[in-house]
Amino acid sequence: MDFIADFFIRFLVQFQSPTLGFLIGGMLVAALGSKLKIPNAIYQFIVFMLLMKIGLEGGIEIREANLLEMALPAFLSILIGLLTVRIGITVFSILPGVDKEDGIATAGLFGAVSASTLAVAIVVLEEESIPFEAWAPALYPFMDIPALILAIVVANIHLKKQEKGEDTDVNVWNIIKESLRGSALSALLLGLALGLLTNSDSVLHSFYDPLFRGFLSILMLIMGMEAYDRIKELRSVAHWYAVYAALAPLMHGLIAFGLGYIAHLLVGFSAGGVVILAVIASSNSDISGPPTLRAGIPSANPSAYIGASTSVGTPIAIAVGIPLFIALAQIVF
Amino acid sequence: MDFIADFFIRFLVQFQSPTLGFLIGGMLVAALGSKLKIPNAIYQFIVFMLLMKIGLEGGIEIREANLLEMALPAFLSILIGLLTVRIGITVFSILPGVDKEDGIATAGLFGAVSASTLAVAIVVLEEESIPFEAWAPALYPFMDIPALILAIVVANIHLKKQEKGEDTDVNVWNIIKESLRGSALSALLLGLALGLLTNSDSVLHSFYDPLFRGFLSILMLIMGMEAYDRIKELRSVAHWYAVYAALAPLMHGLIAFGLGYIAHLLVGFSAGGVVILAVIASSNSDISGPPTLRAGIPSANPSAYIGASTSVGTPIAIAVGIPLFIALAQIVF
Amino acid sequence: MDFIADFFIRFLVQFQSPTLGFLIGGMLVAALGSKLKIPNAIYQFIVFMLLMKIGLEGGIEIREANLLEMALPAFLSILIGLLTVRIGITVFSILPGVDKEDGIATAGLFGAVSASTLAVAIVVLEEESIPFEAWAPALYPFMDIPALILAIVVANIHLKKQEKGEDTDVNVWNIIKESLRGSALSALLLGLALGLLTNSDSVLHSFYDPLFRGFLSILMLIMGMEAYDRIKELRSVAHWYAVYAALAPLMHGLIAFGLGYIAHLLVGFSAGGVVILAVIASSNSDISGPPTLRAGIPSANPSAYIGASTSVGTPIAIAVGIPLFIALAQIVF
Repeated sequence: MDFIADFFIRFLVQFQSPTLGFLIGGMLVAALGSKLKIPNAIYQFIVFMLLMKIGLEGGIEIREANLLEMALPAFLSILIGLLTVRIGITVFSILPGVDKEDGIATAGLFGAVSASTLAVAIVVLEEESIPFEAWAPALYPFMDIPALILAIVVANIHLKKQEKGEDTDVNVWNIIKESLRGSALSALLLGLALGLLTNSDSVLHSFYDPLFRGFLSILMLIMGMEAYDRIKELRSVAHWYAVYAALAPLMHGLIAFGLGYIAHLLVGFSAGGVVILAVIASSNSDISGPPTLRAGIPSANPSAYIGASTSVGTPIAIAVGIPLFIALAQIVF
Repeated sequence: MDFIADFFIRFLVQFQSPTLGFLIGGMLVAALGSKLKIPNAIYQFIVFMLLMKIGLEGGIEIREANLLEMALPAFLSILIGLLTVRIGITVFSILPGVDKEDGIATAGLFGAVSASTLAVAIVVLEEESIPFEAWAPALYPFMDIPALILAIVVANIHLKKQEKGEDTDVNVWNIIKESLRGSALSALLLGLALGLLTNSDSVLHSFYDPLFRGFLSILMLIMGMEAYDRIKELRSVAHWYAVYAALAPLMHGLIAFGLGYIAHLLVGFSAGGVVILAVIASSNSDISGPPTLRAGIPSANPSAYIGASTSVGTPIAIAVGIPLFIALAQIVF
Repeated sequence: MDFIADFFIRFLVQFQSPTLGFLIGGMLVAALGSKLKIPNAIYQFIVFMLLMKIGLEGGIEIREANLLEMALPAFLSILIGLLTVRIGITVFSILPGVDKEDGIATAGLFGAVSASTLAVAIVVLEEESIPFEAWAPALYPFMDIPALILAIVVANIHLKKQEKGEDTDVNVWNIIKESLRGSALSALLLGLALGLLTNSDSVLHSFYDPLFRGFLSILMLIMGMEAYDRIKELRSVAHWYAVYAALAPLMHGLIAFGLGYIAHLLVGFSAGGVVILAVIASSNSDISGPPTLRAGIPSANPSAYIGASTSVGTPIAIAVGIPLFIALAQIVF
């Protein structure tokens, strides 16, 4: 009972957190038909700033980290990326009224990772003074890329079977390159490299770090507006997408929490690190995933996967997932 | 004599203030034909940042404020909004060569409120360590919305009389909604709500507050450029607009100062609060007012009201109004 | 030998500096085909912020500076601007396969000044605690404008000779006005004026200064991307441009260093000031120069001069020039 009470308190407290407040505020503002808009150039810049901060911090930490310690969580991230997509594809293949490719693309997006959800988790953990390995956010690409690849490969194998004889080769290496070239992963990896190879502590602590929470609040506002705008799209597709989008983040997070706990027992992965792992598993890609999937599975309907992810999956991952995994960590550790 | 000396010293000192310096610098830069431009996306973002700061601070303060204390100033704000528009309409109806609807729209704009002028007043009061109720800037919508509504309603009644039989219903509720949905008021009210309902102190003090003055300096630069560019428009309309634009801000501010002083005597409204009230009365809407009026009184000529407001009204309100009301407060209180 | 060792250590250390790291990171990101982009509005805003900081600081310092002290370095800046362009024109007139006007335009660009290279030098000098006169960055326009004017005048005289009888008057005053109106010089001069005439210390130290290094890191990233993108253009023109672009920055810097040292002996110009003078001589215009030259010498091929400047000249000036001049200063002073 303690756990449920703890979760509910955290859940309610989080509604008082400015991060979630800005998300809900964005939804309200959009719902009330406000003309308030954050320009797209600012949105792109904010995402760059957040990922650069996460990358630089991760890179600086990896410099001093025991890389062996990171090996198991990195391997688990790959495993979780593949597993969650595999489960999603199976689930959608059973559900009625769901187009095969739409289901695969949605499963891919929910297996992939969201930088903004990760940023919220970092802020919440810092606010609650729960320590985590600074390289933990750098697990992001280990989960993101395999998830997107698996979805695109499965979709293309399916298409090939359908249109026998047609020659649509699936080039895995091309999908990896495409993922790494996406603006989100590029910024994160650039930050990692700069953190690892240059003396970037001062620019991190004087610039990227102090602006992190503020920019995150604006990003949440934009995502809230976007979430509301996408609800219409979700209405036009089978309601199974909404059901999946509400449950998958929690299910994926719990699987990752379990595997992360094993890493805790084996190599001492910290409680905060396990929460980070659970949150990135719980998150679904909102920046780089959609264009990658659109290019990789052009026959899938973006309204299905983007609507489900932006207007249901992300709010659930942030508002329910994060307090849930932290409450769980308080019990288990 | 002390008052005049005090005002002149303040007036001259303010020309040394960076805020006014940036405004005049912007005018000069535009006058000299410079290609310097602040991108529009940055302008929108800066306005958002300033209003969010004003809103958050107001919301946090309202949480602890005695709402009864705020009631009289809020009521006075509504009164001033209506009164100044009413006076403006009467003045323009007497002046020769002024189109009826243009006069009504101009009166509406000068009754409505400018977020940037308000921001300058906040900075000047803080610099001079004159305390004010932190909810005072939240009086903004109480004056802004009634002013815009009254102007649009009067204009439409006038149009109806002219074109008897035609059915142009004036829906007051629609004008209110339109005003609240404008980007400036939306940002301010969102900030108020977030300040009131969430624990936003930390994001306010680590992000929105430290960037306030710097962003205001850039906004002043943009407004200076805009003021110069609009002078041409002002030349193409009757010169009475320029005369009104130069006198109305000071007249409106003095009316508000007098009413604010009554609130001081009755409920202890602070000297700084009275200055804020006078400044928002003195200011004229530069962000959300013009589009609202353009939609509400489509037959009015924007060159008349925007030119008068941007290139005369706002510089007068900032450069003359603010030092005048502060000097007055030093005498009276 | 000490000098060479010192330079190499500085050179290698600088590769660990985040500034150069971001420049190289930008090249890599572009070379790897990443979709990461910093929006153009952000780029323009960052350039404005950097120049406003340099200008404000210079203006505040000039207020208290002995203007006579500045006279000789300012005169030398004009001299260097004219000399480097004159040398460049002569060099290109000898080289085979180089179009006359293209050579003149390239010489003009390499005589003109880059705000971003200057900004890097300021950061490096501050990091190494090498003091310099705060008005030294304000030497920028004294070198920039004469260089652009000379190039445009020579190009037009050449064109006139070719097309005898045609009346293309070269109006020097128009070129000066055009240069001053460019966005970079406008921002710098506006900052100087505001620093000189207003109490801008507080907005400088609370806003423009703390954001300087961070924004510079992003500008370096953008310039790295741009440098890579321009390499293709460079390939399409004679390879002499690349040779010139690699050598001219160092040669120009060394000439300026020598002249600056004379100013040191005569009027006590500081070691840091001499380095600043050498760096601005070494730099080549990347923001305001290209459009001015495009307007002034429309027959020249932008691929030649922009490619050489952006993809070779600027990286050389930053990565080789700055450590070289600082190492030299350590020996000489």
